[in-house]
Amino acid sequence: MGGVTNHGNGAYNQLNAEGYLIIRQGARATVAPGLETASVDSPLTTASARNLSAFARRLLALPPPAEQQPAKVADFRYGDLSGADFPVLAWRRASNRAILRRAARLRYGDPQGSSALRNALQAYLWRARGISCTPDQIVIVNGSQQGLDLCARLLLDVGDPFVIENPGYLLARHAFVAAGGVAVPVAVDADGLRTDALPPARLAYVTPSHQFPLGGVLSATRRRSLLAWATGMGAYVVEDDYDGEYRHDIAPIPPLQTLDADTVIYVGTLSKTLSPTLRLGYLVVPASLRLAFCEAKRLTDRHAPMLEQDVLADLLASGAYERHVRSIRRKNAERREVLLRALADHLGPSVAVAGADTGLHVVAWMNGIAAEREPEIIAAARAAGIGLYPVSPLYDATVPRPETAGFILGYAGLDTEALQRGIAVLASVLAEHG
Amino acid sequence: MGGVTNHGNGAYNQLNAEGYLIIRQGARATVAPGLETASVDSPLTTASARNLSAFARRLLALPPPAEQQPAKVADFRYGDLSGADFPVLAWRRASNRAILRRAARLRYGDPQGSSALRNALQAYLWRARGISCTPDQIVIVNGSQQGLDLCARLLLDVGDPFVIENPGYLLARHAFVAAGGVAVPVAVDADGLRTDALPPARLAYVTPSHQFPLGGVLSATRRRSLLAWATGMGAYVVEDDYDGEYRHDIAPIPPLQTLDADTVIYVGTLSKTLSPTLRLGYLVVPASLRLAFCEAKRLTDRHAPMLEQDVLADLLASGAYERHVRSIRRKNAERREVLLRALADHLGPSVAVAGADTGLHVVAWMNGIAAEREPEIIAAARAAGIGLYPVSPLYDATVPRPETAGFILGYAGLDTEALQRGIAVLASVLAEHG
Repeated sequence: MGGVTNHGNGAYNQLNAEGYLIIRQGARATVAPGLETASVDSPLTTASARNLSAFARRLLALPPPAEQQPAKVADFRYGDLSGADFPVLAWRRASNRAILRRAARLRYGDPQGSSALRNALQAYLWRARGISCTPDQIVIVNGSQQGLDLCARLLLDVGDPFVIENPGYLLARHAFVAAGGVAVPVAVDADGLRTDALPPARLAYVTPSHQFPLGGVLSATRRRSLLAWATGMGAYVVEDDYDGEYRHDIAPIPPLQTLDADTVIYVGTLSKTLSPTLRLGYLVVPASLRLAFCEAKRLTDRHAPMLEQDVLADLLASGAYERHVRSIRRKNAERREVLLRALADHLGPSVAVAGADTGLHVVAWMNGIAAEREPEIIAAARAAGIGLYPVSPLYDATVPRPETAGFILGYAGLDTEALQRGIAVLASVLAEHG
Repeated sequence: MGGVTNHGNGAYNQLNAEGYLIIRQGARATVAPGLETASVDSPLTTASARNLSAFARRLLALPPPAEQQPAKVADFRYGDLSGADFPVLAWRRASNRAILRRAARLRYGDPQGSSALRNALQAYLWRARGISCTPDQIVIVNGSQQGLDLCARLLLDVGDPFVIENPGYLLARHAFVAAGGVAVPVAVDADGLRTDALPPARLAYVTPSHQFPLGGVLSATRRRSLLAWATGMGAYVVEDDYDGEYRHDIAPIPPLQTLDADTVIYVGTLSKTLSPTLRLGYLVVPASLRLAFCEAKRLTDRHAPMLEQDVLADLLASGAYERHVRSIRRKNAERREVLLRALADHLGPSVAVAGADTGLHVVAWMNGIAAEREPEIIAAARAAGIGLYPVSPLYDATVPRPETAGFILGYAGLDTEALQRGIAVLASVLAEHG
């Protein structure tokens, strides 16, 4: 399969669409990593003793995630929360109540989610995000990742192009690619996704409240043009509001969903306020898609676990969830202050910080340090007990990447001391390797 | 699309493979229910304003499930458990311990499941089912339905035939059909799946310990021929051991998995011993498939909820789970006795009971009552407060169904009084309508 050069060939395009080939502009196509290198004892080869599906082959051709133990001094991995922030007492109380309240008969629940939780979420989404929807438009999912996977399965066919922010969230891209979609990366800037030349596509995945990872907020003009494009195209827009609870210096901006409830599928998560280990999230879907999402959820895993749904409904209804959000928002605002001050103190003008207005991470661009030096800096930082994560893998491989080294600094899992020490150690690593 | 008659046509076969057409032997093909009847205001038509994927269209063409409130006097719906049987105290204690034990950092877990739970399950599966596997072969899923959906996605492509027991478990069939598989129904008898003429297929779904719904136990000879067929075909066998904990009058038979760990994917569930609302299950997969299942689980929803995993691991390791299984096994054996005695007392020779050796349900064939009368009997039973569920929808529509009316009687959700009263009322309904 190596050395395919006939770019006009149908089979070639199919291979590309299925993720077996990587095309770089002006370069020869290469077989995707993990396929050409499969050796006799690799899991891929063994597995292909009996045929895996095209989905499985697309999945296994995706770059494998790098799993690592947390770094000892300070791990800036994005997505982690501090265990100390979890509302242990409130959760235990609600959980004990829910266990005692269990029904006389234990039977499969509503695939869409319990009506108590959907009612409570409807009220919360209106108060917190200005979303006006019926409980019937809400589908409870096992974290936002399942929401994205359901969108991929229901809205994309093999070979369908989808718009993805560049750089963007990898696990969203992977869900759509595994479903057979063809990623069409579109650049972002400080105002979020650039909507001046949106390509034909069947779906667009966006993070308008806080572009992941660069942090831009999608401007009002661009919101309108994105929605106009989608309407003209008959495409859906998947809005991932992954950290909408965290705004620091800016006024709240209502989600895209509030502008066009027939076009936008809103994806919400509890992973950034309660815990990523809970696996609880929700979708707000256009009324016309309700049945498809419900039946897909039923076939996928029946419904989200009832006990967690009951506990969350209790926390939302009692106000305990919103009290917790206010508390964790304050804590993370403090962490952000500490991080920004440490960056200014230790690195000063040699670092350019982006995306600090909202969310639980910032991007630190290292002025004057070439992107090629990232692996060396990451290794030296890890040796010094610092977990550092580069921006560059979040860029599409087919378009030019930035020339400056950049890192995503997640701060929600770290305390003040770890943040200060982490940046101090990082500064000395950079002084040596920068 | 109505009135397609050219059975040799490729497009026709494709439509059939995608579930849009129903072929009955010797009859004209018809468009699947729900497609031809879609009216202007139906959810299907509204949704198709923007294209849904082929997966979504296959999904929505499946017969919609009948959701009903539990019947008042006695609901024999299979799959329900009694709330009184849930080990409230043990679960609360383990859950409170798990919440307090939470990690300093909350981060996404292993897609395969926590190692504590997989280690505990490995030991349990050896003790309880004679399964010898490594913790690395175990994948924790959100109930067996997710296990089946992952098998469908990883092992079937559009148009691939799969063997399914006839009659068989509908949600398994639906998962494979939604993935694009083409169901090839194979008859079952008292010895389970008939293996004398297995057709070419890529996958077989079987319930060898207790055929669902008819209750046969797959004979040793047939186990060997099924595995020989799979090996020759390069096919996988999905073994759904949905109620393996419940054996009444027969000696335990080890799962198929113990005979060929490279061919069989074993599907286990906690829905029949703890609660169907928990959404916890597990797979034991061939080592060669581990990576594919892990990555599919990651992309699908990251991992199963950590708190439930911790609680279950605790219950398994402490022995509390096995104590609970012994207790609920006793309770269900009593329910079974009461049900069988009530059937004998009230219906005597007019009912033939099948599949009572294991599990949590029996099938009651109503001697001398034609299958066509089922809807009338079900309606009359419901009016009298009895929830009754026919066997006939579990048969493939393309082959002849039994001529006698038959009902699946699930008993695990009912107490002694409800079981006795339920059968007494059923007898009077049958006396009037039989």
